[in-house]
Amino acid sequence: MCSSENPLIGVIGGVGPYAGLDFFRNILNNTIIARDQDHLSTVLISCPALIPDRTEYLLENEQENPAFGMFECARRLEAIGVKYASVACNTAHSKRIFDPFTAMVREKLPNLEIVNMLETCTAQVKKTMPGLRRIGYLATKGTYASGVYHEYFREDEGFSLMEPEFQGRERIHEAIYSKEFGIKVHSDPVQAKARSILLYETFKLLDRGAEAVILGCTELPLAVNPHDFLAPIFDPGKLAARRLVGLVAPEKLRQD
Amino acid sequence: MCSSENPLIGVIGGVGPYAGLDFFRNILNNTIIARDQDHLSTVLISCPALIPDRTEYLLENEQENPAFGMFECARRLEAIGVKYASVACNTAHSKRIFDPFTAMVREKLPNLEIVNMLETCTAQVKKTMPGLRRIGYLATKGTYASGVYHEYFREDEGFSLMEPEFQGRERIHEAIYSKEFGIKVHSDPVQAKARSILLYETFKLLDRGAEAVILGCTELPLAVNPHDFLAPIFDPGKLAARRLVGLVAPEKLRQD
Repeated sequence: MCSSENPLIGVIGGVGPYAGLDFFRNILNNTIIARDQDHLSTVLISCPALIPDRTEYLLENEQENPAFGMFECARRLEAIGVKYASVACNTAHSKRIFDPFTAMVREKLPNLEIVNMLETCTAQVKKTMPGLRRIGYLATKGTYASGVYHEYFREDEGFSLMEPEFQGRERIHEAIYSKEFGIKVHSDPVQAKARSILLYETFKLLDRGAEAVILGCTELPLAVNPHDFLAPIFDPGKLAARRLVGLVAPEKLRQD
Repeated sequence: MCSSENPLIGVIGGVGPYAGLDFFRNILNNTIIARDQDHLSTVLISCPALIPDRTEYLLENEQENPAFGMFECARRLEAIGVKYASVACNTAHSKRIFDPFTAMVREKLPNLEIVNMLETCTAQVKKTMPGLRRIGYLATKGTYASGVYHEYFREDEGFSLMEPEFQGRERIHEAIYSKEFGIKVHSDPVQAKARSILLYETFKLLDRGAEAVILGCTELPLAVNPHDFLAPIFDPGKLAARRLVGLVAPEKLRQD
């Protein structure tokens, strides 16, 4: 075994599976390499059967907390030496899911550090756009209903979060979950209907005065290219992937 | 934990890392699902620093056999319960690498079954095109020099393998390895120069009489779409991914 292997990076994917793949791609895309061997040791675990739908849990509260399945994935990663990991799902970062998850990790997997995707995003927004106040975000109904973004982009710190109106939130949810055209079922390629809904809802947020928009669901970057907009568009998955690269090999972090 | 989790699938990626990602995508794309939770539990391990370049090993024989790094990845996968795994690299299937690798797995990881990507490809070619004789393949210089495809597509079984001419083989190698435009360094997006070389060399093989062409390097499907050709184009990575799905959940294997 080569002694220069970096501390192992883990990605808890499967939530959904294509979003996990996109998170991994972000790690690769943000690493400076000249050959295969320069890429960072990374393990993507995708066990979706273990993790109930996060939005359903938050809205209906009738099934097992997804935190338990996320923890089982974390346990498996830790068992093979993973040191830093993220969960590739925004909705999972709701305190009702993420707090019990991180509590279990702290207690039972003390050698594993969880990089919180939304804390990473908040820190990046504050750093790169310190004057930013009005920030829009596209998300699942579970993320909106649980108020998870309000926990990270706090009013008392000057943030004013903007959400699409009721119909827009419903349409975004369909763009993610619809069996006919939603990204979770139709990812490769993403359907034009899903993409057009997400583009339009982003433009509407900007038109209403949002100074930046967050793609607040890891399925959204599969459909929306931040470069399609003049305004800053933040992708928490990309930011967390960059944070993981920066933690294990800062000299290899590609300039953004 | 949900009791209905499938036997864990493993992908030994990192050889190269984007090819591993593509292999994982093939598992997702070939699974019938209606929601996230229907996707199969899969772990992608990508530890490229552990696995020296396969082509360099075969051509120069000066470094450690990549089999040892592949085995370390297999060991990690087995430690978390993976039952079936493939190595997402054609060149690694040369007997000089793959035989010691599978010997170590059989001896030390008896619960892990390795699905051989090239055996799977040969079986599929024989099944779907039983009369096929003249078969072209695009590959790295290591794959050509090691004769690995001749071990699987045997003359005494009637196969006549066709390779590009010398200059073509050099150009294909550049399309994969060049620091300026090769797929290993420039995968997202693939550069037009790499793509055009590979398209042209495929057309030339078909023009010389190949009845089908195999994309004999896992980087090639990142650049070449089999649907760009009228002739049958085989992608061993896709075939092995389908085989893994069929092994753990035959009822979920999507029709090709």
